[in-house]
Amino acid sequence: MTSAAVPMTPLPETDIVPEESGPTTRCRILETAEAAFREIGYQKTTVADIARSLRMSPANVYRFFESKKAIHEAVIQRLMGETEQSVALAVENAGAGAADRIGAVIRALHRTCAERCEANPRMQEMVAAAVSESWDVCAQHIERVAIVFETLVREGVATGEFNVDDPKLAAACLHTAVVRYCHPTLVSQYPDAGIPPLEAMIAFLLKGLRGVP
Amino acid sequence: MTSAAVPMTPLPETDIVPEESGPTTRCRILETAEAAFREIGYQKTTVADIARSLRMSPANVYRFFESKKAIHEAVIQRLMGETEQSVALAVENAGAGAADRIGAVIRALHRTCAERCEANPRMQEMVAAAVSESWDVCAQHIERVAIVFETLVREGVATGEFNVDDPKLAAACLHTAVVRYCHPTLVSQYPDAGIPPLEAMIAFLLKGLRGVP
Repeated sequence: MTSAAVPMTPLPETDIVPEESGPTTRCRILETAEAAFREIGYQKTTVADIARSLRMSPANVYRFFESKKAIHEAVIQRLMGETEQSVALAVENAGAGAADRIGAVIRALHRTCAERCEANPRMQEMVAAAVSESWDVCAQHIERVAIVFETLVREGVATGEFNVDDPKLAAACLHTAVVRYCHPTLVSQYPDAGIPPLEAMIAFLLKGLRGVP
Repeated sequence: MTSAAVPMTPLPETDIVPEESGPTTRCRILETAEAAFREIGYQKTTVADIARSLRMSPANVYRFFESKKAIHEAVIQRLMGETEQSVALAVENAGAGAADRIGAVIRALHRTCAERCEANPRMQEMVAAAVSESWDVCAQHIERVAIVFETLVREGVATGEFNVDDPKLAAACLHTAVVRYCHPTLVSQYPDAGIPPLEAMIAFLLKGLRGVP
């Protein structure tokens, strides 16, 4: 493509588009930030870079987000929200049984994580920043997924499908036991060799839920 | 302490001690390297730093290890060897039952990991380097621990304590399910909030091994 050979000319100040406002601008900032984090990495991206891509002044970006950290938090919240939607859809589309639904949730968590890491090799950098700078945002996402697991375990106990004394604790164990398949760091940075296929792990965990306490 | 106020004078060339050889030197290099990785971090430590601390020429260090990577691999192999010794000791000291032994192994893996991360806040840097540069060394350690789990699951199947179709696969599930408690990155970088107590997880997993398939 010949256009790739033409260096981008920096925009003169006068070319900056008039400042905008409203939810559309907020979305455009997030989309641009997400693309920048994916292409040049979270650490190297500055608010000025994001503003430049949008032909906007940095001051206008700061009208919507008070810091790069705030932009990052909104980006990861959006990604986590997508994961939670996949989980909700998986529950909806699975069979009526709690075991089937739990399997579907674990598969959805793994699939969204794996697809995202493959599409974004710099995902790990965003995750590390989220864990160290914005743990609360991560914790809220983990908690929302935990509630889905807990609801399904309770369902299974109610129907007699599962045999557990403490559904909340069993759900937490289930959730924690699949971290190897659903955590971006482990999924993207570690070879799969040695870990059991996801279906074997699901079967193993469901057996624990069904077994006599 | 007044001595802390006196800056270390770099040793003049003539003060370098005569070159040594033999297993003792190898050990001293590893001890010094481990301390440097702990104190200034793996990335910032150079072979020259290690040699200087030992009052040795870098060339002498290279007689024992061909690169910093080779030193690092030997250091992590030693740490992993210590973990494997703790695991072996846990099996020896636990009760005769396979379930008791499996619990003891998981506790030993968690304890060595947690203690090491606490003693060395830069552990994560060494782990990241090991995963990306020396995966084979990590894989060999994981495989050795996997064999312990498999042996114990087979024992439990033989005595009728466990009810599993495929002991090797069940052992791999067990091993993978405890990664949250035994992986330096997760143990050192993530808050414990939300994860079940280790004893609850052990009980949950043992229930899966005992349950009717």
